[in-house]
Amino acid sequence: MTDPVYSVDGALVPASEARVRVDDRGFQYGDGAFETLRAYGGTPFEWSAHRERLARTCSRLGMPDAVPDDAHERVKATLAANDFDDAYLKICVTRGVQPGTLSPAPDVDPTVVVYAKPLPRGGVGSDPVWDEPARLRTVETRRPPDDVLPADGKTHNYLTAVLARVELRGTDADEALLRDASGAVACAATSNVFAVADGRLHTPSLDGPVLPGVTRSVVVDLAGEAGYPVTEGTYTPLDVREADEAFLTNSTWEVRPVAHVDGTAVGGGPVTRALADRLDERVEALY
Amino acid sequence: MTDPVYSVDGALVPASEARVRVDDRGFQYGDGAFETLRAYGGTPFEWSAHRERLARTCSRLGMPDAVPDDAHERVKATLAANDFDDAYLKICVTRGVQPGTLSPAPDVDPTVVVYAKPLPRGGVGSDPVWDEPARLRTVETRRPPDDVLPADGKTHNYLTAVLARVELRGTDADEALLRDASGAVACAATSNVFAVADGRLHTPSLDGPVLPGVTRSVVVDLAGEAGYPVTEGTYTPLDVREADEAFLTNSTWEVRPVAHVDGTAVGGGPVTRALADRLDERVEALY
Repeated sequence: MTDPVYSVDGALVPASEARVRVDDRGFQYGDGAFETLRAYGGTPFEWSAHRERLARTCSRLGMPDAVPDDAHERVKATLAANDFDDAYLKICVTRGVQPGTLSPAPDVDPTVVVYAKPLPRGGVGSDPVWDEPARLRTVETRRPPDDVLPADGKTHNYLTAVLARVELRGTDADEALLRDASGAVACAATSNVFAVADGRLHTPSLDGPVLPGVTRSVVVDLAGEAGYPVTEGTYTPLDVREADEAFLTNSTWEVRPVAHVDGTAVGGGPVTRALADRLDERVEALY
Repeated sequence: MTDPVYSVDGALVPASEARVRVDDRGFQYGDGAFETLRAYGGTPFEWSAHRERLARTCSRLGMPDAVPDDAHERVKATLAANDFDDAYLKICVTRGVQPGTLSPAPDVDPTVVVYAKPLPRGGVGSDPVWDEPARLRTVETRRPPDDVLPADGKTHNYLTAVLARVELRGTDADEALLRDASGAVACAATSNVFAVADGRLHTPSLDGPVLPGVTRSVVVDLAGEAGYPVTEGTYTPLDVREADEAFLTNSTWEVRPVAHVDGTAVGGGPVTRALADRLDERVEALY
């Protein structure tokens, strides 16, 4: 893969030369927000939803105006500089460099980075980005409660997900199922969890410390269109293991079936396929 | 203040030019460990304890060999390059740049940064680094449980402490008192908490998600030498408010009295002063 071009504070630079100061609070404290998204046919998918969540995360970090007005333009300029139509994109907004020590000053000069990598398109009749269905395993690492880290946004404090993945070493699993402090299923390391049981689609309620995934929201919407009733509730790993179907969602995977959970076969099925097909159709409309 | 010199992967560079790649996992995910320490008379104080905790944190992150063998030399070279005798020091070890996405590869080429800033010396008869006693306030942000983030080490996932400080905006407090999920006092945003009551020194037990502070450990040791009984227990903010004396410890503040807690006057006192004096004497021995 050739060196892609990133945007750092508006300047387009080769990825291998894209740097931030070690004094940046994003590096020192993980003091920043990010979004991961996809572009299809040169268009960032669900940009408004991602921008809204990015701004909300920044607000929760006490820097409500940190997302630059031209964020969308920077994303599109990065895509264009790489000549990418279909791509993985990430945008980061950190609190930048500030004088003093830990207490953040209200006046913020944010650091804004846009990453881009080529990613084969989804859409009707195409190959998915994942190689095979997910092998899920329940881990001991727990999803942070909302009073520890904002649960409704993505921050550079992403170590809990990393530690969950570290727990998978030596197992055959490739995605970690995280519970909240009460033992209820929250989400997977980088994805939301759905299960089909009793003729309904189930997914953990946002009342818990569950990331309100953009693809999660699109899938709930598509399920409504398709006439599948959706319950947002409280579930244990056993509920997922015993489901008729299970799948994961995130912006890069889209809809990814779950092969097994803690060694118990679950698999996708007709509902998973129907929702994946409907998502493909929505993506296809972008071309 | 002139631009100090930092060490980045062994190279000594001006702070304003010290950078890491935006692909560094330390920046993207806060996937790294750090230690903050002081140098007195050109000697990093309690280096062995800091190095041990740094290595333990890296182990908990699944990169047990990430701390370079020459870490002490890099710290001393940074001090020397700045011509600092008395200094604030910070050393960071991140998982560096890796191919792929979130799951960390076992093979690690860590990024190692040493920061240095001048800091007036402590020691006998000198001025403390803090301007005045701490004004402490109990916040709603909670200290992360150990199954969310390692409680016995310092990682670049430091946003909880930042958010605790953000909560102090608009109040007269300058340090945040954090409880754990059960409501027990854990520590302050960047310091350990001690209280004197019933003729004993009290501090939250490491059974909770409490950072095992290096200065905390030194102070417990000094209290033993001075004949003050120490209890490591479980406390509420009310216990701290009602104490005879209270103080905070960390590597830069050393022993810092608490003026008030949630508006209730507490203050230092004879035990706080005696322990601060003994710490001064221990530091003085380094010159």
